[in-house]
Amino acid sequence: FGNGFSDFAGSTVVHSVGGWAALVGAIFLGPRIGKYRADGQPSALPGHNMSLSMLGCLILWIGWFGFNPGSELAATENVPYIAVTTNLAAAAGGVAATITSWLASGKPDLSMIINGILAGLVGITAGCAGVSYGGAVLIGLIAGVIVVFSVFFFDSIQVDDPVGATSVHLVCGIWGTLAVGLFDRDLGLFYGHGFGQLGVQILGIVAIGAFTVIASAIVWGGLKATIGIRVTEEDELIGLDIAEHGMEAYSGFVKDADIEAETASENLTAGFSNR
Amino acid sequence: FGNGFSDFAGSTVVHSVGGWAALVGAIFLGPRIGKYRADGQPSALPGHNMSLSMLGCLILWIGWFGFNPGSELAATENVPYIAVTTNLAAAAGGVAATITSWLASGKPDLSMIINGILAGLVGITAGCAGVSYGGAVLIGLIAGVIVVFSVFFFDSIQVDDPVGATSVHLVCGIWGTLAVGLFDRDLGLFYGHGFGQLGVQILGIVAIGAFTVIASAIVWGGLKATIGIRVTEEDELIGLDIAEHGMEAYSGFVKDADIEAETASENLTAGFSNR
Amino acid sequence: FGNGFSDFAGSTVVHSVGGWAALVGAIFLGPRIGKYRADGQPSALPGHNMSLSMLGCLILWIGWFGFNPGSELAATENVPYIAVTTNLAAAAGGVAATITSWLASGKPDLSMIINGILAGLVGITAGCAGVSYGGAVLIGLIAGVIVVFSVFFFDSIQVDDPVGATSVHLVCGIWGTLAVGLFDRDLGLFYGHGFGQLGVQILGIVAIGAFTVIASAIVWGGLKATIGIRVTEEDELIGLDIAEHGMEAYSGFVKDADIEAETASENLTAGFSNR
Repeated sequence: FGNGFSDFAGSTVVHSVGGWAALVGAIFLGPRIGKYRADGQPSALPGHNMSLSMLGCLILWIGWFGFNPGSELAATENVPYIAVTTNLAAAAGGVAATITSWLASGKPDLSMIINGILAGLVGITAGCAGVSYGGAVLIGLIAGVIVVFSVFFFDSIQVDDPVGATSVHLVCGIWGTLAVGLFDRDLGLFYGHGFGQLGVQILGIVAIGAFTVIASAIVWGGLKATIGIRVTEEDELIGLDIAEHGMEAYSGFVKDADIEAETASENLTAGFSNR
Repeated sequence: FGNGFSDFAGSTVVHSVGGWAALVGAIFLGPRIGKYRADGQPSALPGHNMSLSMLGCLILWIGWFGFNPGSELAATENVPYIAVTTNLAAAAGGVAATITSWLASGKPDLSMIINGILAGLVGITAGCAGVSYGGAVLIGLIAGVIVVFSVFFFDSIQVDDPVGATSVHLVCGIWGTLAVGLFDRDLGLFYGHGFGQLGVQILGIVAIGAFTVIASAIVWGGLKATIGIRVTEEDELIGLDIAEHGMEAYSGFVKDADIEAETASENLTAGFSNR
Repeated sequence: FGNGFSDFAGSTVVHSVGGWAALVGAIFLGPRIGKYRADGQPSALPGHNMSLSMLGCLILWIGWFGFNPGSELAATENVPYIAVTTNLAAAAGGVAATITSWLASGKPDLSMIINGILAGLVGITAGCAGVSYGGAVLIGLIAGVIVVFSVFFFDSIQVDDPVGATSVHLVCGIWGTLAVGLFDRDLGLFYGHGFGQLGVQILGIVAIGAFTVIASAIVWGGLKATIGIRVTEEDELIGLDIAEHGMEAYSGFVKDADIEAETASENLTAGFSNR
């Protein structure tokens, strides 16, 4: 191996580390109440405010212009180049996830579009300083396709990941790290530099992944065995805004759950009064 | 004409092009269901989240600091100057629209304040590099007045434009382009340079407008005649979040429409059970 | 006094001036309807959208990177230093308020976390250019503790301050100004420079506070005696979005108040029909 493991701004050391720990945590925690039906089929537990989800995605997109170019750690001439590869991959990821979810599920699912943009951003994080503009677009497009099927996959094996964090950060973090071995202009297979760098990238992914899975399993397992990692069923059903923070996120709005609770209470009252 | 058409960051080539195409599209599409009563009077179909509308306006305002100074295409000494003219016009547009809507309709209408800020930004886009600070304030003030009456005008001729995009981008794009011929320190009528530049500006507005109206009419007309440009009546009534994206924008909240649907359904049930 | 009053970016001249004027205004205005029960105990009137509150806090945090480093009025080498002290104090304020509210009220109250971040930012505003990184953390931590008890205090003396603005801007503005006399590396008590600067800081706080209280009392009093400063009881109960702007902030959502109004109306109808 002539060159070491290459991961410019952290597709592996930031995103896949977080993703492995999140995956282990989701397995230790188990799915939310109501996520899987008796026959094992997943139910959608849709987000309550898609405008805010989209805004969060855009804030992350902007933030990545600090994260990736900032990993240069100096105001060099590479900074604008890195900003452009980052932006191209994000846009390509969004386009690819839109088309993929449209073809796969019949509608352009907004939560998949959001995840596609983030997938492109995570995917370009390792290679943002070393790939061409065309390479950045391809990395983003592939990340946007991968993330959709990854979300379906984790749903199918009953790992409940409410926002697709594992698919975005772990799976596309791995993809982005591999992509350096393929698309890097000075190291990559597609630029005539052979399989050497790709091998180093795989070695790095496996080594860091193995460490993170073991370390996070010890932490999650230790927490679960001692103070516990799951709120009570009652707290989960009333919502963590109330259970954990003692306040409603949206006070004054009537929620579906209020109506259901009231109907249940009325039926109970009716039952008693019929005696 | 000693000088060519002057449109620094695109009041005409960006905003009025988009505005003409939007106007043609709105005419081809027709108004939303329920927008006009049988007697032709417009009904308000109010926005569902004014906090988010205001936030969107502020994000556009910030974005304009990239758009106008960025049109210098280099980090020159003009950049901060352009940022200041841009900011002055935006603030002046907001103030003028607040006062105008207050006088015209009895209340300072928040959607008009938002449109006034955007009107000031569109208005200064052509002249941001060439007008004085005082000129920028005047351009913004006039844009903020124009936009309110323009929204009333398009409502009165039954062109349904839910967010006032035509008034902001087309009408104030034209105003901003004309304003270069009046307020530009090196070219404008008010600086003793005669009507020459104003004539060039009018010629540019008309030429680009004529091209855009014809080109967009061909595209909108072609789309309408082939794949269609309007969702079904049912999709329009359930909302495009559900019809087009397969998910609710605000899942879990009770909406007025849910109550109406339930009441209608209960009345139907009651009707049947009374038989 | 060898050195003058030191208030780099305005803990006193910006924040405590605003805070004193707000406090005087809140006293002249009196509490909102329903804020205090007959026995004088405060009732919570919770915010309607905590996601948006948190977002507003983050936007202010970002804005402070313009405000504090921008007060250098030039792109000097001090700018990044000031950005770091500002950020450290904000983070420390958030952590301290989280822990303090958790201990004091049993839950990590999100509105207190938001106020803690803002308290840290206000607290560091005077000293951001002159304190060490460690000093910035301590200033933020203390601000985050102070703000929680300050909110409780103003609630207990029946000054109704819906967002804790007085606690954030006045109380932590005073704290930040005092902190220069303690933590400034060239002037402060803790760096062996004696009580001199601390005395100057106290003098400045008192002088500016006395002026602001008197000036704002004249303005608030004059307004109250002439055009009035309070909306009608009816306007207050239907909400200022409708009363002042003629539009609902969240049109189409069912609010608790709608249900209460309908129930009241049904009971009234039932009462009449029972006659």
